[in-house]
Amino acid sequence: MKPIKGIELWNKAKKIIPGGSQLLSKRAELYLPDNWPAYFSKAEGAYVWDLDGNKYLDTASSIGASTLGYADPDVNQAVIKVVQEGNTSTLNAPEEVELAELLIKLHPWAQMVRYARGGGEGMAVAVRIARAYSGKDKVAFCGYHGWPDWYLAANLADDKNLDGHLLPGLEPKGVPRGLKGTAIPFHYNKIEELEKIVAENDDLGAIAMEPIRDKEPKDNFLQKVRKIADDIKVPLIIDEVTMGWRLAFGGAHLKYGVNPDIAVFAKGTSNGYPMAAIIGIKEVMQAAQTTFISSSYWTEKIGPAAALATIRKMIKINLPEHLDKIGGLFEAGLNKLADKHGIKLKVTGLKPMILLGFDYGDDSQAVRTFYTQEMLKRGIIATGGLDVNYAMKEKQVEEYLKAADETLSKMKLVLAEGKLKDLLEGPIAHAKFKRLT
Amino acid sequence: MKPIKGIELWNKAKKIIPGGSQLLSKRAELYLPDNWPAYFSKAEGAYVWDLDGNKYLDTASSIGASTLGYADPDVNQAVIKVVQEGNTSTLNAPEEVELAELLIKLHPWAQMVRYARGGGEGMAVAVRIARAYSGKDKVAFCGYHGWPDWYLAANLADDKNLDGHLLPGLEPKGVPRGLKGTAIPFHYNKIEELEKIVAENDDLGAIAMEPIRDKEPKDNFLQKVRKIADDIKVPLIIDEVTMGWRLAFGGAHLKYGVNPDIAVFAKGTSNGYPMAAIIGIKEVMQAAQTTFISSSYWTEKIGPAAALATIRKMIKINLPEHLDKIGGLFEAGLNKLADKHGIKLKVTGLKPMILLGFDYGDDSQAVRTFYTQEMLKRGIIATGGLDVNYAMKEKQVEEYLKAADETLSKMKLVLAEGKLKDLLEGPIAHAKFKRLT
Repeated sequence: MKPIKGIELWNKAKKIIPGGSQLLSKRAELYLPDNWPAYFSKAEGAYVWDLDGNKYLDTASSIGASTLGYADPDVNQAVIKVVQEGNTSTLNAPEEVELAELLIKLHPWAQMVRYARGGGEGMAVAVRIARAYSGKDKVAFCGYHGWPDWYLAANLADDKNLDGHLLPGLEPKGVPRGLKGTAIPFHYNKIEELEKIVAENDDLGAIAMEPIRDKEPKDNFLQKVRKIADDIKVPLIIDEVTMGWRLAFGGAHLKYGVNPDIAVFAKGTSNGYPMAAIIGIKEVMQAAQTTFISSSYWTEKIGPAAALATIRKMIKINLPEHLDKIGGLFEAGLNKLADKHGIKLKVTGLKPMILLGFDYGDDSQAVRTFYTQEMLKRGIIATGGLDVNYAMKEKQVEEYLKAADETLSKMKLVLAEGKLKDLLEGPIAHAKFKRLT
Repeated sequence: MKPIKGIELWNKAKKIIPGGSQLLSKRAELYLPDNWPAYFSKAEGAYVWDLDGNKYLDTASSIGASTLGYADPDVNQAVIKVVQEGNTSTLNAPEEVELAELLIKLHPWAQMVRYARGGGEGMAVAVRIARAYSGKDKVAFCGYHGWPDWYLAANLADDKNLDGHLLPGLEPKGVPRGLKGTAIPFHYNKIEELEKIVAENDDLGAIAMEPIRDKEPKDNFLQKVRKIADDIKVPLIIDEVTMGWRLAFGGAHLKYGVNPDIAVFAKGTSNGYPMAAIIGIKEVMQAAQTTFISSSYWTEKIGPAAALATIRKMIKINLPEHLDKIGGLFEAGLNKLADKHGIKLKVTGLKPMILLGFDYGDDSQAVRTFYTQEMLKRGIIATGGLDVNYAMKEKQVEEYLKAADETLSKMKLVLAEGKLKDLLEGPIAHAKFKRLT
């Protein structure tokens, strides 16, 4: 079970596609440089097949883009129907209205909806609308919000601004310098940072944040952010691109009882088909009519058809309950194995999106690379996190834990012998989001 | 043949979707306010069915997004295959590399490729890369380039800047004021305007333009732009989103013999499935590695699979030749009918994308609305332009011209009687791109 064709294709790709992949988190160098399968020929449920026909249990769910599992039969049926009946024309897709009605029903605080075809793009639409509404350009933000200028502008002021927001050390090349000072970061659970931003900037036009990422909100953090937005009368945008639907139907903000003015969904909302939904209160969303937000490919049918089928199925099968249960089994199993083998493995994050950290000082990356290498040999795509989806059941947890048991057992041995680095079959993986050259 | 359900749904949609549509050019008010079918249940070849099951010949090709016709069997076969085999996973799509190789083969001047999922988004990626490469923020541009901030910034300096670039009177609300002066327009075939921009701005970072829109380049215009870009050492970006593939395989720039540093394709490239390709010379494209351009939904398989199938078919059937021939028949037929009935109808634009203008002074919009109204009654979606696609053959030209003959005949009569406005069954259509409220 060694990937050959995928490694060759990846090396070829890097010569003609800058970075090799369209998503930083799908670069081979982040996981197993020189030995990653890199490409897939088929994906179904919790499994993926590489170009040599090797089958793997894929535990990263397309970096969170698939909540139901790959090629979900119900979503695919809806997609194939609109493909066969024609996905585009000069007229509009009635599925857009149906989806808008469903989203508004699930979010009683919202009255209007717009669409795009990706998370970063959806957030850029939301920020445009919020700025058009408030008439002010500065955005206070918390968390990760994608590639557009409005967000990367944060690093024009200080290249450490995005540290702690998933993108440490990010250079904002190509982002106009005129945007300097327009995106100001605050950290999760640190309300005093947002208070300071508000005190120092009377021209704040929006607050944008992820509702949660890897730790629970403390001390009514989200309610306090909401109150600040109310006090200074600017829209609060909640970015549910990553967490949406995993903790609660309709997004984490509903679980934590905070009503934003705009919420943005993408990724998991349509189980891997390009789609984004920007929902909001009427007063703010109407500002979309005072600016120009328009794109041809936002009108095709696959996006809304996939989102309708995905959302209905997530509700029907109670996705948050499933993710909590299966995520809990992964978490407990991994903690038990770490204890059993005496491996310094930290299992953190929330149950639907578990993070694995190896605590070996300067050797931590080498240890993580070894883990990925050995798990891959045992038929598991293990990227340093576990994004649970509906296609992962007890059977897949067992399969994963069996491979992890063998891997951690071997790891213990080679660590004791001081031979771990010798047994790496390629370079050590790059740290996540560190710039690749 | 009167649309009922679509009109009702459109009125409902406008209450929950700002503007009703995700594309300005698909708003009912632009064509036949209160009477437009607005939505489709099915689309195949050159035809579309509304929600009541009425069938129309659709002459706008999804506003240019479909070059082969709706639900093209070859493209759909490729799309359904990747849907059934799983369109996403944690690994990458090998179709991206295959498409990159095909694009590079068709464009010998280019060596590297990135992807996005829409035209506006693709141009924003191109501008980011060009700015990252040149280290300068100002962009001189010509033509229409979508909704993102970099482009709308032009109207921060002067709200007439986008006049003549398809978006007159556009308000740039929500576009940060710090971008003022970063996007500077020049008009097609007016090289002296670009020369003036260059003379006045030593910090120009890119030149972005459509290769052609509705008139031929004169006096080596494109070659002169190329030379200026070389002289000041900034990337020339050619936006082929609208015209790409219609005049020549691989884009209009190949027909006119000008090699850009970056070219952007979307719309017609994938026959209605969300996709964008940003291709360019290695030296410039590598700057993508010095910034952050990354999005989950750019990694799924439908986009590249549809683009591969669409491009291969466009070459196989010689699309430019077909569009030239069929467009020529439409043009000649309409000119003949205008003569026959003594209607002041101006047929302009290029053969693949014909523009129809009624020259009746202040009544021109009323006359155009009457034309759309009467054509619709005769089973034709006629939007004021004719975007030819491969599914339109001689039979469809005849069908259109028969309806146009009847419509222009009736028009002549009611104009003579001064009754045209009385016979409009709804309000006069809004002028294209005029802000709707």
